[in-house]
Amino acid sequence: MEKNSAWQSAITDVQPNSIRLRGYPIDQLMGSISFAQAIYLALTGNLPDERYGRLMDAILVSAIDHGATTPSTLAARTATSTGAPINAGIAVGLLSINEHHGGAIEICMRMIQSALDDRRASGCSVEEAALRLVNGYLEQKKRLPGFGHRVHSDDPRTKRLLELAAQEQVAGAAVEMAQMLTGVLARQSGRALPLNVDGAIAALLLDMGIEPELGNTFFMMARVPGLIAQIREEQSRERPMRVIDPTNQTYDGMRREE
Amino acid sequence: MEKNSAWQSAITDVQPNSIRLRGYPIDQLMGSISFAQAIYLALTGNLPDERYGRLMDAILVSAIDHGATTPSTLAARTATSTGAPINAGIAVGLLSINEHHGGAIEICMRMIQSALDDRRASGCSVEEAALRLVNGYLEQKKRLPGFGHRVHSDDPRTKRLLELAAQEQVAGAAVEMAQMLTGVLARQSGRALPLNVDGAIAALLLDMGIEPELGNTFFMMARVPGLIAQIREEQSRERPMRVIDPTNQTYDGMRREE
Amino acid sequence: MEKNSAWQSAITDVQPNSIRLRGYPIDQLMGSISFAQAIYLALTGNLPDERYGRLMDAILVSAIDHGATTPSTLAARTATSTGAPINAGIAVGLLSINEHHGGAIEICMRMIQSALDDRRASGCSVEEAALRLVNGYLEQKKRLPGFGHRVHSDDPRTKRLLELAAQEQVAGAAVEMAQMLTGVLARQSGRALPLNVDGAIAALLLDMGIEPELGNTFFMMARVPGLIAQIREEQSRERPMRVIDPTNQTYDGMRREE
Amino acid sequence: MEKNSAWQSAITDVQPNSIRLRGYPIDQLMGSISFAQAIYLALTGNLPDERYGRLMDAILVSAIDHGATTPSTLAARTATSTGAPINAGIAVGLLSINEHHGGAIEICMRMIQSALDDRRASGCSVEEAALRLVNGYLEQKKRLPGFGHRVHSDDPRTKRLLELAAQEQVAGAAVEMAQMLTGVLARQSGRALPLNVDGAIAALLLDMGIEPELGNTFFMMARVPGLIAQIREEQSRERPMRVIDPTNQTYDGMRREE
Repeated sequence: MEKNSAWQSAITDVQPNSIRLRGYPIDQLMGSISFAQAIYLALTGNLPDERYGRLMDAILVSAIDHGATTPSTLAARTATSTGAPINAGIAVGLLSINEHHGGAIEICMRMIQSALDDRRASGCSVEEAALRLVNGYLEQKKRLPGFGHRVHSDDPRTKRLLELAAQEQVAGAAVEMAQMLTGVLARQSGRALPLNVDGAIAALLLDMGIEPELGNTFFMMARVPGLIAQIREEQSRERPMRVIDPTNQTYDGMRREE
Repeated sequence: MEKNSAWQSAITDVQPNSIRLRGYPIDQLMGSISFAQAIYLALTGNLPDERYGRLMDAILVSAIDHGATTPSTLAARTATSTGAPINAGIAVGLLSINEHHGGAIEICMRMIQSALDDRRASGCSVEEAALRLVNGYLEQKKRLPGFGHRVHSDDPRTKRLLELAAQEQVAGAAVEMAQMLTGVLARQSGRALPLNVDGAIAALLLDMGIEPELGNTFFMMARVPGLIAQIREEQSRERPMRVIDPTNQTYDGMRREE
Repeated sequence: MEKNSAWQSAITDVQPNSIRLRGYPIDQLMGSISFAQAIYLALTGNLPDERYGRLMDAILVSAIDHGATTPSTLAARTATSTGAPINAGIAVGLLSINEHHGGAIEICMRMIQSALDDRRASGCSVEEAALRLVNGYLEQKKRLPGFGHRVHSDDPRTKRLLELAAQEQVAGAAVEMAQMLTGVLARQSGRALPLNVDGAIAALLLDMGIEPELGNTFFMMARVPGLIAQIREEQSRERPMRVIDPTNQTYDGMRREE
Repeated sequence: MEKNSAWQSAITDVQPNSIRLRGYPIDQLMGSISFAQAIYLALTGNLPDERYGRLMDAILVSAIDHGATTPSTLAARTATSTGAPINAGIAVGLLSINEHHGGAIEICMRMIQSALDDRRASGCSVEEAALRLVNGYLEQKKRLPGFGHRVHSDDPRTKRLLELAAQEQVAGAAVEMAQMLTGVLARQSGRALPLNVDGAIAALLLDMGIEPELGNTFFMMARVPGLIAQIREEQSRERPMRVIDPTNQTYDGMRREE
C-alpha cells in the first residue's frame, strides 16, 4: 500500500507536556469546567457557558440508570455472569442500545427539526406546523418518537428537564415545538401521550445546537456509569452463571427522605 | 429450568412515575448535583459533597481524550470507517482499553493500597513503606504502574489534579503515599519517572473511597465522549475504507489563547 | 413485570443427555456431516446434501482471510495490542464488518433477486432483465454491489467458486443472472468490472436457498478463524502497544509449491 | 510518531489476483479441503490430513448450539431485541463466552498437559500421574475443568467424540490421560463426574497439536453459526423489546427420526 498524505484531526492536540482539547489546555479546563461542559466542548468544539453546563448535567443525570431489567443492563449482566471483564460488559450494554431502546432521541430530533423547517419554509404558525406533523403521523398510524412510555404516564424527568430549561433560559424553538406537539397530539389522538424523557432531551439538544447524529450518544454517555454500577453489583452480589430472570427482580436498596 | 426466587438490586428503584437512584428521586437530583456527582452516587451509593464533585469533574475532564492515534481511538475509527454505527464504534474503543492502555489505574490503586496496608500493619513511616515497595519493584525489575509516560515527562494533568486535590482538601493518605513513591523512585532508580495521570487518578480515587475494581472504569467513562467526538469526525470528515495511518496524522484545529 | 407465556425456539432441543439440532441428534450428525453442512442445517433447518456441503466449504474457505491489513483485522490487532482477550479481539473484528467491508453480499443478493423477480414478473429474457438493471445503476451513477475489487482485477476465488458451482450442479438462475450481469455491465459501461468474490458468493447463496438477510454472515463466519489466526500472531509475535502501520506490512511466511 | 520498519505476518499473502493462505493458493484449497481443514491450516500453518479434518468437523459440529437459553445466546437475543444488527449480536454473544461459559477448554488443556508433563518428567505411569493430579484438586476442593455438566450426566457428544478419535486413530496421550482421569476421579471422589464435551475437545486438540491458548476459540468458532441462527430467529419470530425470560422457553421445532 502506498503512503497517504497526513490526515487531520481537530479534536485534541497532543504534544510533549501539552494536551489541548479543542484548542484549550486541558489542565486549564480541569477545575474550571465540569465534565458535562467538557463533553459539550469535545463534541461541538464550543465552550458552553454555565447555563448550558447545568442543562448538560441535568440531561446526563436524567438517563444515568433505569433499573436492573432494561435490555442493555440485562445483556451486560448476562455477559458479566459468564466472567466478562468490565469493559466487555459495558460494550455489551452499548451494543444493546439501538432503535428500540435508547434510540428515540435522534429520530425525535429529526422530527422536531422537520416541523421547525416546515414552519420556516411555509411561514406558518408553530401550532399549524405541529398540526401538520401530528396529522401526518396519525394518518400513517405511526407513533411519534419521543412520546409515551411503557412505565411512566407522567415522567418526572421530563417535567424537571423542561422546568430547568425554562429556568436557565435554554429552551428555544425546539422546546416550544415539542410542547406544542404534546398538546396537539393529545387533542388529535384523543388520548394523552406525554412527551417522554427522550423527547425532552431531543428538544433541548436541538436548542443547544447539537446535531441529530449525536442525539442517541447522550443516552449512551449517561448510561455508561449506570451500566458500570449494575455490572459491579452483578460481580459482587451474584454467583456466576445464575439464571437472570427479568420477570422476578426487586429493589432492596435504601430509600432516602426527600 | 425452575423458577428462582426474586433477585435483588440496590441501584435504581423504578416505579410508575418514580425513579430513585440509590434512594434519591432522580428528578430531585437533576439540577441539584452534577453528572460527575451522580456518577459517584451511582457507583458507591453515597451522595458526594461539592469538593468530591469538583474532583470527580477534574478527573473525568483530564482523561476525556488524548488525540486521534491512541489505540482505542484508532480501533474505533477503523470500525467507523467500515460503516459501523456509533454505538459499535464506542464498543470497539472500550474493548481496546485493557492492561496496556488505560489499565494502569486499578493496578496502581492496588499498589498504593498495599503500601498503605504495609504501613498500617508494620507501624512504619510513609517513607519506609514507600522505600520497601520501590525496592521490591526495582529488585524484580518491574515498572511501577502509574509512573512514567510515553509522551509526557511532566504531565500537566498530574500537576493540576494534585493541585486541585490539595485545594479541595481531598488529598489524604493515598496521595501522600503516591507523592512519597515519586520521590523515593527517583532517588532509588536514579532517574525521574514522574507520577503520570493514571497514578494521580489512582491515588485520588483511593482517597475518595473508590474500590480498585472500579479504577479503570473512570478512564472508560471519561474516554467515551472523546471516542464519540473522534467517531463523528471520522464519519463527517473522511471517506469510508481509507487507510488510517497512525504515523501520519496532524492537528488542524484551533488554538485558543490561554 | 408480569409473567409471559412460554416463548418458543425451533433450533436446538436440549434435554438431559440429548441434544438435537433442527431435530437431529447432534451425536449422529457428528462424524456424518461436515461443519459446513451443519452450518447450513442450523441456519435453514434443512440438511444439505454433499454437493451443497462442498459448496458451503468452498464459500467459507474462500473468505477465511485476506491479509493483515484489512480493516477488521487491523481493528482486532489494535485491540489485541492493548491486552484484549481473544473473544474481545474477535468481537472488535466483527464490529468492523459493515456496509463498506464485507457487507456487499446481502445487497448483491437483493440486487440479483430483484433482476430475477423482474424477469419472472415481466416474462422477459435473462439478458433483458440484466440490461434493465445495469442501465438503472449506470443512469444513477451507482456501483453494482458485488462487482470490482480494490486489489484483484481477476479474482481467483470468483473463478473457482463458479467452476465448483457448475461442477456440483448447484449453479442455477442466480448464478446465470450474475454471469449475464457481468457481460452486460462490461458492454454497457465500456470497462471490465468483473464479478468479485462477494458477488459470486451472493449468487451461489441465492441458488442454495439462503435468504439475503443471512448473506453477510457467511463472510463473518468465514472470517472468524482468520481473525483468530491474526490475533494469535499479534499476541505471540509483537510487543504490546506497538504502532500498527497499515502502509508498512509485508508477508514473511512460507510459499508452498502448487 | 516515527516511521517503524515493516512488520511481518505469516498468515496470508495477498497480491493482485493471488491470495495464498499459509503459502497455499486459496483457489486451490477451495474444493480440495473442507472449511474445518482450512481452519486448522489458518491457525497452525499446517495442512491437516483427512483424519484431522474429520475430527475438526466433529468438534465444531458438537459445539454449534446448545439451545436458546445459554448465556451467550440470551445476551445476543437481548441485544437483537433492541434492534442490533447481526454482527453486533454475534459480538455480544462472543463477549459472553468467558471463564464460566465456554472457557473450560483452555484450562482443561493446561491441566491435561501438566499431567503429561509430570509423567514425562517423573517417568511415572499414566495412572500415577492422573492420581497425583486428581488428589491435588480434591485436597484443594477444586473442580477439575472439563468434568461434569449442569444438564448432562452422560453427554452423547463426549462419547461420540472419543469414538471418532479412536476410529480415526487421532487419539493419543492426551485422550488416554483424559480417560484415565475420568476413572481415577470417579474412584477417588466416590461419585461419577464424567468427562464433558469441553474436556473431550480439550484432549483431542492437544493430541492434534493445538496450543492451549487457542482452546476456547474452538468453542467460539463453533458457536458463531449457532448464535446467528438464534439471532435470526429472534429477528424473524419475536417482536422488539419483549421480555426474554430464560425460565420459560420451550422447543417447538421438528423431531426427525434417527
